Amino acid sequence: MEHPSIPSDAGRRRFLRQSALAAVAVPAAGLLASCRDSAPAAAEALASAAGGPSHDAAHAAPAGAPVVATAPKPSPREAAEAMDAMHEKGIKAFPAKTEGRGNQVMAPRLERGVKCYDLTAREIQWEVEPGRKVKAWAYNEQVPGPQIRVREGDRVRITLRNELPESTAIHFHGLEVPMDQDGVPFITQPPIKPGASYTYEFTVPNAGSHMYHSHHNAAKQVLLGLLGAFIVEPKQPKAIERADVDHVMILNDGPHGYTLNGKGFPATEPVVAKKGQRLRIRYMNEGLMIHPMHLHGMHMTVIAKDGWDVPMPWKCDTLNVAPGERWDVIVECTNPGTWAFHCHILSHAESDHGMFGMVTVLIVK
Amino acid sequence: MEHPSIPSDAGRRRFLRQSALAAVAVPAAGLLASCRDSAPAAAEALASAAGGPSHDAAHAAPAGAPVVATAPKPSPREAAEAMDAMHEKGIKAFPAKTEGRGNQVMAPRLERGVKCYDLTAREIQWEVEPGRKVKAWAYNEQVPGPQIRVREGDRVRITLRNELPESTAIHFHGLEVPMDQDGVPFITQPPIKPGASYTYEFTVPNAGSHMYHSHHNAAKQVLLGLLGAFIVEPKQPKAIERADVDHVMILNDGPHGYTLNGKGFPATEPVVAKKGQRLRIRYMNEGLMIHPMHLHGMHMTVIAKDGWDVPMPWKCDTLNVAPGERWDVIVECTNPGTWAFHCHILSHAESDHGMFGMVTVLIVK
Amino acid sequence: MEHPSIPSDAGRRRFLRQSALAAVAVPAAGLLASCRDSAPAAAEALASAAGGPSHDAAHAAPAGAPVVATAPKPSPREAAEAMDAMHEKGIKAFPAKTEGRGNQVMAPRLERGVKCYDLTAREIQWEVEPGRKVKAWAYNEQVPGPQIRVREGDRVRITLRNELPESTAIHFHGLEVPMDQDGVPFITQPPIKPGASYTYEFTVPNAGSHMYHSHHNAAKQVLLGLLGAFIVEPKQPKAIERADVDHVMILNDGPHGYTLNGKGFPATEPVVAKKGQRLRIRYMNEGLMIHPMHLHGMHMTVIAKDGWDVPMPWKCDTLNVAPGERWDVIVECTNPGTWAFHCHILSHAESDHGMFGMVTVLIVK
Repeated sequence: MEHPSIPSDAGRRRFLRQSALAAVAVPAAGLLASCRDSAPAAAEALASAAGGPSHDAAHAAPAGAPVVATAPKPSPREAAEAMDAMHEKGIKAFPAKTEGRGNQVMAPRLERGVKCYDLTAREIQWEVEPGRKVKAWAYNEQVPGPQIRVREGDRVRITLRNELPESTAIHFHGLEVPMDQDGVPFITQPPIKPGASYTYEFTVPNAGSHMYHSHHNAAKQVLLGLLGAFIVEPKQPKAIERADVDHVMILNDGPHGYTLNGKGFPATEPVVAKKGQRLRIRYMNEGLMIHPMHLHGMHMTVIAKDGWDVPMPWKCDTLNVAPGERWDVIVECTNPGTWAFHCHILSHAESDHGMFGMVTVLIVK
Repeated sequence: MEHPSIPSDAGRRRFLRQSALAAVAVPAAGLLASCRDSAPAAAEALASAAGGPSHDAAHAAPAGAPVVATAPKPSPREAAEAMDAMHEKGIKAFPAKTEGRGNQVMAPRLERGVKCYDLTAREIQWEVEPGRKVKAWAYNEQVPGPQIRVREGDRVRITLRNELPESTAIHFHGLEVPMDQDGVPFITQPPIKPGASYTYEFTVPNAGSHMYHSHHNAAKQVLLGLLGAFIVEPKQPKAIERADVDHVMILNDGPHGYTLNGKGFPATEPVVAKKGQRLRIRYMNEGLMIHPMHLHGMHMTVIAKDGWDVPMPWKCDTLNVAPGERWDVIVECTNPGTWAFHCHILSHAESDHGMFGMVTVLIVK
Repeated sequence: MEHPSIPSDAGRRRFLRQSALAAVAVPAAGLLASCRDSAPAAAEALASAAGGPSHDAAHAAPAGAPVVATAPKPSPREAAEAMDAMHEKGIKAFPAKTEGRGNQVMAPRLERGVKCYDLTAREIQWEVEPGRKVKAWAYNEQVPGPQIRVREGDRVRITLRNELPESTAIHFHGLEVPMDQDGVPFITQPPIKPGASYTYEFTVPNAGSHMYHSHHNAAKQVLLGLLGAFIVEPKQPKAIERADVDHVMILNDGPHGYTLNGKGFPATEPVVAKKGQRLRIRYMNEGLMIHPMHLHGMHMTVIAKDGWDVPMPWKCDTLNVAPGERWDVIVECTNPGTWAFHCHILSHAESDHGMFGMVTVLIVK
């Protein structure tokens, strides 16, 4: 990016910060959510919008317009080349390395046949994309939190230590647990105070792709990262469920920007399968907006909704995933190549600075 | 709420009013809709946003930050306690008493075998939550309007008297009536002028969970309250439809805030059933946004869409309800307890001041 | 519109331009997208919001309020009459003539059995509604671009000449083409530079209602008009697909406002069928928002999603269409009349100035 009239990444962030502060409309709820604490937090959140949730702010950056007022205006051809260079740079950087990886499968500690999981909620810095670090509230320093994978009928014990400055609680979204394990402060339990610990224990009731997340001040806490996958393998898997590759994809759209498993493009993780393999994708939406996920090159067969088998599987290439929903699909990987895979609300996936946010690829070798 | 640094409800409203007036982003369409008439209306609408539709405005209120600039800043522990106290207060207040109750089943007047319903549309004050009164345009002083419940093949006559300052008309959303009863001004009828009356009459054509609402200046009139359930029992109910408890839940998100049957939490109505009973919920969305409704503790079996049986019932715990849609679900009430039941766009259900808006509970005794 | 206190169309545009520039919230992404180029473009985009995408801006215009400060305030009755007159005027103008018609079926050039389509992408002025012209980026000067209709197994060759000031590329959304024909710059091909041409060629793989559109800077390019229907007839049509009338309806919500096939009401095209005919509607969403499409008077039977047969057709009267999705429905035209047909996000269809945007009618003769 050598052309002086094209904003550097830093210049672009500065520009966006200024324009966002001056701008009148910042529609992303999560963005404002993190503006409340302090001016620096607001500035950081706004700066992060450059590659993040506010497509309006992103669009406020004129393509190829000089940030420094005295720079010469590029010709249309130069502007087009510069835009292409930014797009190419993003794609060539994929998959970009960042610190931290969320959604890692967690091995339980076994105590007399009970699968025990120890979680600590704590504030961390989380690198969403190369160089863009945000404040996160995380379980075990992962966004999303560690993936819990158990089997129908397992006994599980989950102990949460709260090192956050706020009270919290865990709701097991989709699991039909007894009421006292449901994690709703003042209805099913007291809130877990800062510094305190709390233990949940239950026999895993129903199979499927479920989630766990905060149910206290949740519009803030979940969007800051207090969420994870809670996957329950069935005792008797059905033939249609058989998969060679099992990929969990958690969508979010809060103050961290538009993310897949806690990262924005180009730091998102590619999905990789061999030709002929069956790929299972488990979509989970922990954000505030719908995300119609579109896969290029091959269709998806929907097999489950919220962990429940659909009575008749159906096919699509664009699947609308609403907040709180989980959808399981199977992709028969018949078409070799590198296939774009993204939210089809285009402003969640691309700006004139290139692809960002909810974009990854499916590689079929 | 005795700690001086925690805003009282009144102080919080004042703060929000000021911050909302100063704020740059008020994304809720309905909010602005009621800003157009006059400055006081705007101020009222903005103030009402405190517990209402603008999560951005709500989020602008710092949790535990002093409203009075000279108050001492609370310690993190004090702030956490204060936040919990606000959350607890909201939940303990549930179900809170408010003036007025919408969606009451209306008994028809019988005239020679015709079921006659007299509706009057009028401007009223409507208490959405304790102490928060808003301007509403209502049928028979109810928001939602009276519930009309008839049977397939019934002859009905609906007379509307318009005491509003604007013309209006009623569309029977989902009913396949003859065109001249369809309620679209200048296409199927003249508008019903202020002071005038108009009579609709038809034989009820198709069973299901339908709605009636204004189809004139509807983006304003429906959001202000001119809407209601129009439920048509089938001549031959199917076994799957059998329910011990039948609950209509109308979603709205206009200038009154996020509401279920015209009320925001904690003034929403709990759904109550006994263990072992079958509960039918009829979701209807009269707002401008999707609302993915999430039930804790038990799943829902979807049996009808827009009044039409689904060919194969399917299960979920989070059901995305889009504007204009109706979805009928059955819940087998097997899991005793008090279960949170809310829109899973978390900013429609919770702020750091506690739960609000589209939240209720299912109580299984 | 002779009453001096009612804004004329021009006065209304001026008012809206002013109020929109002063207003604090302009949530429509597309709107801001076109604000980025220059102040005149911004002013034009904001002016166009009068009948277009920003219902907030539209709502900022007081019904019947004087634009000229010295005009006398109308009485409530006068205001109601004036509002009705605006509503009537819109409906009486339908279907309004405008320059340009998109989505016209394109006849291919045959070269040795290959169906060849020549497309040129170019900036044009596009009349969305009578008198409202916007900047568009169009294929062959049509918004949506020419409709491509082929048969499963056909060989097609599509040549794009890029006369835009930006690079571009075509993605065949829903078609399971080989990777090198997938149209994603820097992943499957280089971008097509301004002044350059590029040829795609493939054997049409899967039947259904698909789309073609830009996949480069797409959040801008698609919303400005670089999109079209790509319909693949099956080799063996099923009985359920048989239709007397086949209507493609492409939804968009960018800087051109809320549109059906590139036009806003009253310039939208009516759907016309005879009583007893079977009507097929192919919904395609190329915008950034969901649009739950509601048909009055008759229900729709959903037969396909994204070009794939649904395993069991299901019925509805309101169909939620998310960005990137295509839904095929059949309407049995049994109920004669002129039936409103619109997005049920009411602010996409009506303001106090009357119906606009995503509104048309189904006429059953």
